[in-house]
Amino acid sequence: MDEMPGKVYLVGAGPGAPDLLTLRAAGILKRADVVFHDALVHPRTLELAARAEKIAVGKRSGRHSTAQKFINKRLVDAARCHKIVVRLKGGDPTLFGRAQEEIDALRAAGIDFEIVPGVTAATAASAELGVSLTRRGFARHVVFVTPRAANGERENDWVASVLAADTAVIYMGAALPERRVLRGTLADLPELARKTGAGPAVVLLGEVLKAAFAKPAATEEIEALLKRA
Amino acid sequence: MDEMPGKVYLVGAGPGAPDLLTLRAAGILKRADVVFHDALVHPRTLELAARAEKIAVGKRSGRHSTAQKFINKRLVDAARCHKIVVRLKGGDPTLFGRAQEEIDALRAAGIDFEIVPGVTAATAASAELGVSLTRRGFARHVVFVTPRAANGERENDWVASVLAADTAVIYMGAALPERRVLRGTLADLPELARKTGAGPAVVLLGEVLKAAFAKPAATEEIEALLKRA
Repeated sequence: MDEMPGKVYLVGAGPGAPDLLTLRAAGILKRADVVFHDALVHPRTLELAARAEKIAVGKRSGRHSTAQKFINKRLVDAARCHKIVVRLKGGDPTLFGRAQEEIDALRAAGIDFEIVPGVTAATAASAELGVSLTRRGFARHVVFVTPRAANGERENDWVASVLAADTAVIYMGAALPERRVLRGTLADLPELARKTGAGPAVVLLGEVLKAAFAKPAATEEIEALLKRA
Repeated sequence: MDEMPGKVYLVGAGPGAPDLLTLRAAGILKRADVVFHDALVHPRTLELAARAEKIAVGKRSGRHSTAQKFINKRLVDAARCHKIVVRLKGGDPTLFGRAQEEIDALRAAGIDFEIVPGVTAATAASAELGVSLTRRGFARHVVFVTPRAANGERENDWVASVLAADTAVIYMGAALPERRVLRGTLADLPELARKTGAGPAVVLLGEVLKAAFAKPAATEEIEALLKRA
């Protein structure tokens, strides 16, 4: 075992499909000694870390915040006895992944770290819908938000940022390849929420999304939805 | 030559570093017959498309919009005589890449297409700075904007969306590995702009960025900047 402290890589696993991992992330996983991964990371992504001990630390949404402190401590401890420690997160580590709390803990402990960006759920979802989140002449800004409030935050302070943006993506968690697409207007949201049931979701809002349903049949469908709204 | 019409892949090349390409994008490039690529795509990324004809179609910012129509037409024409046509774009195709205009042209011509998402410049920049764009309790939303207005758009309508968001990233173009990081407050922007000179840039704004300069020396530096602001 190396006496030198190791390095922690905060790695984005991408939106779910294992081939949406970056080449850099795949290379680091192959060299990893230990991998702390979210619950929603694809098994084939984990298989890339052939020589690593794999430890699931995924919090499902709404769990108690001490779990995060426990993850922070485990990362610091692991870096003291392993060379290459990976914290593998769904999507991109810099968006809604509580990476900053882990970074702060690593910095405080004097542990070297590096962030490896990934494909985030918003652009993966729009890619799958065959639509751009921005569109010249229509949409020059897109906001990514989480509706989940921390202690002391106002529940609904995110609404203003959604209303100010041309396009909005609401992150309810990460996605997996076994996904469904549901579409409708804002008025349909309660019904759509019932259809989705439990589990992670991203919600895309904006004029640009109309183009995702531009094929003849789907156009009629979305127009019917718009009339109902 | 195949009589069947081909398929066009709108592929995100990522933020610049060739190893921030996805595995899926790398696989498609290897099979590509022809690649239409932005000016800023890394040469090593293009090398992956070993058997493809490579055609630079990159518009530098501010060029005339007929260029886009010409690209649209070339994609449609290429799909009529090649099986695998790649439109390789810096960053992620669904963010500020004028992908929607290409998608519309492909749809109108009845050409099959698929979008392959990529790592966008915003999260790559924050990863490099070692900071999250969101932070539990501080930043629940982040807006990505382009200040470039199309004909008929108001120049400054993006400012409200920046002000409404906890964190903002202003896209001035894609990035390349040969990058520089300049930091300061809003008051320093004119000076920083003089330092950057011409070329693509992303501008990150928000409280969360303070954490990027949390090391002792850098903290003094940023505090000095804050005092001047």
